[in-house]
Amino acid sequence: MSDSPIDTPILDLIANPDDDALRAALNDVHPFDVAQAVEELENAEIWAFLRRLGDPLNADVFSHLDLDHQAELVQEHAPEETAPLLERMAPDDRVDVLQAIDDELRERILARMTVSQRRVTERLAGYEEGTAGGVMSPEFAALPADLTVAEAIGLLRLQAPRKETIYDIFVIDDASRLIGVVGLKDLILASPKDRISEIMRAEVISIRADEDRNEAARKIREYDLLTLPVVQGDNRLVGLVTVDDVLDVTEEEATTDFHRMASVGNIQTDLLGASMSLLYRKRIPWLLVLVLMNVFSGAGIAYFEDTIAAAVALVFFLPLLIDSGGNAGSQSATLVVRSLATGETVLRDWLRLLRREVLIAGALGLTMGLAVSMLGFLRAGPDIALVVAVTMVLVVIVGSLIGMSLPFILTRLKMDPATASAPLVTSLADICGVLIYFSIATWWLGLQAA
Amino acid sequence: MSDSPIDTPILDLIANPDDDALRAALNDVHPFDVAQAVEELENAEIWAFLRRLGDPLNADVFSHLDLDHQAELVQEHAPEETAPLLERMAPDDRVDVLQAIDDELRERILARMTVSQRRVTERLAGYEEGTAGGVMSPEFAALPADLTVAEAIGLLRLQAPRKETIYDIFVIDDASRLIGVVGLKDLILASPKDRISEIMRAEVISIRADEDRNEAARKIREYDLLTLPVVQGDNRLVGLVTVDDVLDVTEEEATTDFHRMASVGNIQTDLLGASMSLLYRKRIPWLLVLVLMNVFSGAGIAYFEDTIAAAVALVFFLPLLIDSGGNAGSQSATLVVRSLATGETVLRDWLRLLRREVLIAGALGLTMGLAVSMLGFLRAGPDIALVVAVTMVLVVIVGSLIGMSLPFILTRLKMDPATASAPLVTSLADICGVLIYFSIATWWLGLQAA
Repeated sequence: MSDSPIDTPILDLIANPDDDALRAALNDVHPFDVAQAVEELENAEIWAFLRRLGDPLNADVFSHLDLDHQAELVQEHAPEETAPLLERMAPDDRVDVLQAIDDELRERILARMTVSQRRVTERLAGYEEGTAGGVMSPEFAALPADLTVAEAIGLLRLQAPRKETIYDIFVIDDASRLIGVVGLKDLILASPKDRISEIMRAEVISIRADEDRNEAARKIREYDLLTLPVVQGDNRLVGLVTVDDVLDVTEEEATTDFHRMASVGNIQTDLLGASMSLLYRKRIPWLLVLVLMNVFSGAGIAYFEDTIAAAVALVFFLPLLIDSGGNAGSQSATLVVRSLATGETVLRDWLRLLRREVLIAGALGLTMGLAVSMLGFLRAGPDIALVVAVTMVLVVIVGSLIGMSLPFILTRLKMDPATASAPLVTSLADICGVLIYFSIATWWLGLQAA
Repeated sequence: MSDSPIDTPILDLIANPDDDALRAALNDVHPFDVAQAVEELENAEIWAFLRRLGDPLNADVFSHLDLDHQAELVQEHAPEETAPLLERMAPDDRVDVLQAIDDELRERILARMTVSQRRVTERLAGYEEGTAGGVMSPEFAALPADLTVAEAIGLLRLQAPRKETIYDIFVIDDASRLIGVVGLKDLILASPKDRISEIMRAEVISIRADEDRNEAARKIREYDLLTLPVVQGDNRLVGLVTVDDVLDVTEEEATTDFHRMASVGNIQTDLLGASMSLLYRKRIPWLLVLVLMNVFSGAGIAYFEDTIAAAVALVFFLPLLIDSGGNAGSQSATLVVRSLATGETVLRDWLRLLRREVLIAGALGLTMGLAVSMLGFLRAGPDIALVVAVTMVLVVIVGSLIGMSLPFILTRLKMDPATASAPLVTSLADICGVLIYFSIATWWLGLQAA
């Protein structure tokens, strides 16, 4: 009856009182699908289900729940029960959950973990959010350089079950400094007697723990890596970022930029799942700010009351002109925001882009000015047609320059350039548009009247 | 002198007449960095450099150039020289280049390839763009189920150099049907005498070649996969999509959505690299469409000329009201477009979202209506304040419903929902706003005057 072939059996199985049958059946289903299915249930039902699943399946399923759900479940249950579950999660995912709950509860949970797990957790939690350290896993496979390939494979067999990935194996010296990398593929292809030092690549692309996580994403994407080693201080290896961490980062950053550009606060949970009050709170602040900005457009119009009263036909072209400036401006802003986000453009490119933008916007404005001058002529005669056409050119140029410059200014002020949202650019372009339009109209029509 | 520590040496090395020294030095640099450095040169210089690099380095560097550059270089040189270079590229990248050049030249290049490479290329080129088949690689590692682990590793050693990845090994039956998957990690951990059939996972997540490539991206992201097998017909294994293909897809799709939402055509080359005429051509069509749409707002205003002449103060609030509807609408459109793109929301969720949106937009509109009614009262008295406040509530609701519905309608019409750009929503909301505002004003102020 359901759309997904997996939903129904899983939810049916939960009704089955036989725990062993449940576990056996779910062993073959991907934990993501199980998590998807139970996400529909009440929290109490999810928890009862996780209890019945037992080790180690419950941690796999729990890891694939939404972060919001994870935090709620941990918040609602005793540390005696949640601490062992959290200990079985990947350390980077565990830190995310712990950072989403109360400080006091977090301390009580940490106190129940083994000393080594607590240390790992606390060290990871020490990295700032948004850095490579904040998304890395400490579970890398590392070997000294003087082993033979046969010895290395033997050691990997012992390490593998506890490591996130063994497909890139890092080579370190006595002081844990990163000196090379070997792919598991290279190990398989090498002769068992070869030394690691002979087959490793000494040119390793790495990232410092305090660098931006977007930079980690960029490196993994551009260099086609599976893992990126994270180093600190004197090139000491402290963790690794995997390509699947980066996929999540890329998706999340793209969503954040996207939402900011339309002046929606960032909403990471899905649209149907988000509560109405969350959606209200994320949307209202910018809408109110923009209302207040638009008051300036109104003030501009009030200033030119006599001009408008003298030629009401001017009002016909008002939405057209101010929207065109805003549209051209939000195009520029979008191009620049995306370009800054992907790292193609940097702060010092501003002047070069600005020069090009004047020319492009001039060409756009001329084309649009020609289009509206014909409309203006038919509707309101040659004078207003001329005023409207000239205004169009200027408004498009001014709007584009605002749209292009705002993201750079925000970046300079250490703010997120995506906050230079299309509506903000539109509002600024509106104010300029009103002033330009009625100034030209007053001057030109006044000149004719004289 | 340069910002990047790598640029200068590479460009210096090109000046070095010793080819062996050049190759030795570049062997330790990632081909992406070499490509980045030479991308600044003229096409003729790039080609001369690739010639000096020789096999196999030249194909690695060539693979990391922009697609635009690759196509230009192939177009400018003889098939005798370009065919061997293309043959050394990954088949999926090769197909992209061949699809970007003239049909006639493509045939001449294909004619110079080995029969097997030509067949692979033609088969891959047969999959539609945007499908999983269109991004997959045919170079997967596959084994029969009855081998022992030791035999499997032996076979992999032979296959590995020619395969894109051997970290997931697919298990197939006599008819090439996909029946399981084994991680290289599992092979390393297993006993050499174990059979593949005993250690493989039989529940394989796969995708059909004709499914959307975004669906491949979603599966890889959600199931944390390194590779996703691509099947056809009777579950026959035809290729694999790797996580790094998907990273590129995710980045590209996010950029495309982002650009579409601001009514910029899709621009994949970087902003500074894009020619001025490309930027003009990508931006002008929508700007002109929007100009034409705005004419309807003007027509609406013209219809209410008498109302405006009777109360010029109404014009003061015009930008405020129509922008607010547009802003609320573009927020909704953005949330829905992103949600459709990530697969969280599907077509049949429309009605549920619409009901919620009416309530959210009502709350937003009331808040904004209260804010402007005070402004309206101070500036223009109680009557206009009331008209403006009521209009605000209605305009925000109508704008939001337009913004929310348009992406669904476009999806239903099999068009890209991201085309429901913020400016388009704004223009539609403008027209509705003008009609609502002046209708209410005419009725209320007329009522008062009577």
